[in-house]
Amino acid sequence: MLKIAIDAMGGDFGPQPIIDGLIAALKLNNNFTAIAVGDKTQLENLIPSYLLNRVEIIHTDDVISMSDSATDALKRKESTIYKAIDLVKTGEADAVVSAGHSGASMSLATLRIGRIKGVTRPAIATLMPTSENQNTLVLDVGANVDCDAKNLFEFAVMGQVYARDVLQIDEPLVGLLSNGEEESKGNEVTKEAFKLISKIPNFAGNVEGSDVFKGSVDVVVCDGFIGNILLKTAEGVADTIGKIIKKNLKRSLISIAGAVLMRKVFKNLKVRVDYAEYGGAPLLGVKAPVIIAHGKSNPKAIQNAIFQAINSASSNLNNDIEERLKRFSS
Amino acid sequence: MLKIAIDAMGGDFGPQPIIDGLIAALKLNNNFTAIAVGDKTQLENLIPSYLLNRVEIIHTDDVISMSDSATDALKRKESTIYKAIDLVKTGEADAVVSAGHSGASMSLATLRIGRIKGVTRPAIATLMPTSENQNTLVLDVGANVDCDAKNLFEFAVMGQVYARDVLQIDEPLVGLLSNGEEESKGNEVTKEAFKLISKIPNFAGNVEGSDVFKGSVDVVVCDGFIGNILLKTAEGVADTIGKIIKKNLKRSLISIAGAVLMRKVFKNLKVRVDYAEYGGAPLLGVKAPVIIAHGKSNPKAIQNAIFQAINSASSNLNNDIEERLKRFSS
Repeated sequence: MLKIAIDAMGGDFGPQPIIDGLIAALKLNNNFTAIAVGDKTQLENLIPSYLLNRVEIIHTDDVISMSDSATDALKRKESTIYKAIDLVKTGEADAVVSAGHSGASMSLATLRIGRIKGVTRPAIATLMPTSENQNTLVLDVGANVDCDAKNLFEFAVMGQVYARDVLQIDEPLVGLLSNGEEESKGNEVTKEAFKLISKIPNFAGNVEGSDVFKGSVDVVVCDGFIGNILLKTAEGVADTIGKIIKKNLKRSLISIAGAVLMRKVFKNLKVRVDYAEYGGAPLLGVKAPVIIAHGKSNPKAIQNAIFQAINSASSNLNNDIEERLKRFSS
Repeated sequence: MLKIAIDAMGGDFGPQPIIDGLIAALKLNNNFTAIAVGDKTQLENLIPSYLLNRVEIIHTDDVISMSDSATDALKRKESTIYKAIDLVKTGEADAVVSAGHSGASMSLATLRIGRIKGVTRPAIATLMPTSENQNTLVLDVGANVDCDAKNLFEFAVMGQVYARDVLQIDEPLVGLLSNGEEESKGNEVTKEAFKLISKIPNFAGNVEGSDVFKGSVDVVVCDGFIGNILLKTAEGVADTIGKIIKKNLKRSLISIAGAVLMRKVFKNLKVRVDYAEYGGAPLLGVKAPVIIAHGKSNPKAIQNAIFQAINSASSNLNNDIEERLKRFSS
């Protein structure tokens, strides 16, 4: 039976939403147990006694806060995130979920759990919504700010394997984010990366920013600097459109009547773009599944992050990444 | 009186929308004359005779098409875009508007008109809508795919001067696009650029993708590769939200009723995000105003591009760019 380690204290709202999400996951899926790392008294109060046989609690009261530096976190061996990740390192757990300090989670996972053979740098992948009934996996979205062509090639391989093994997409298509679709487009790094990625099957070539939301491909590859800008731009545009609609609504009673009638539509829309639906972002390239959840995760997001961890841990993800990196590297 | 040169043939829809836009501009503003470059017979048929005293027509029938290469365009001295740009080089016109091949327009403008002293690379700037009653000027959005810190510094200076001299913004705030607001964020190039841009007044530091649409700053600086991705991402998200709304609408009669009532709201929204409102994108850093309009420009967009050209030509833009580059370069 799979064992999932959880940093129960690291989120922005303390242990309550994390444990609520864990309880929901335990109820929906009988095939795993959990190790919750955090304040024993607090956690015991939050977990119903009939579930305590499926949750081991490891006590510690040091929590890395969002304002701490990631390097600091490497030294604080008693912190919830350090302990949760080390449970995977020692083999006591199969995967780890953290809604805590994402920089600390990444650094600790990379240094304590270690990289898969052939991976130069682990990458964070996230799902973006499209207008179709599918999502686009984008990586890297923050772990690596300066990337070379080899890094991007590794991201392409890791993203494609994750899409197949965990997201269950048959022969996932991979695109390289660029400033135009033609092969001649790109900056120095992406032009070199294009050649390397051309060796893997189902490479769709260059794609544009708009393709991420069209669902033209299943996986989009970029460096972490651009990935962050893409994410923030998407959030910003969605937010701005919402605000403009609201502003215009205030101007007429008829529009307000219309808005009331359209409430259901907007509710559906929210579900489509809600990060909670996807859970967390997997850190690909480390030797065990690490799911980095949003600091503001609600119970639904934590539940889905736990399911992501389970799906990753029960797949052949990391072996396949290692095998394909070996096969397609020159 | 200002003279504006216009490539009358280069747009995707031929001379009709270009000339209609020119006619609209001539009617609204009596203080300029135009030189239209293109097929004399066609153009004379499109321009009402009472306006012919304000429009000189220079005949040529070679047009660079969108599928031609920019380098090809440098050799075709009889093309509309080559001739229109050379009118500025020779001093016969004060500014030029082109809805033709944008790569050709950029290359010709840079090589034939020449760069302002102190400018290493000209940049294309564009206005992005925000939820507030203002827009954000973003540059570079395509001219320069690989940029160093000095290039980004020059973009910051040029953007700030354009915002002040042409957009009439008092003390415009400049932000550097990065993967976080903290000074420690950035890739190698932006971290170095941060130091250089720090020398100019009203530098707001690093900004995120979402800030472009919040209106947190007046000018956002990035390289042309990222600028293109930002633009396409914004278009893609807006488009996808529209499609999701439409799809959901189909599902219920009540929503359709709501949508009808909200039509006015969506119409307002469209105006806010419509590129035609802004006209074209100025190519900053060349010795005369060059406005690059969208290939699919409608008459309104051309009219506004002409007004942009007039506003640039009657400002102190290029002298101020030269002076400030000299003052703030170390």
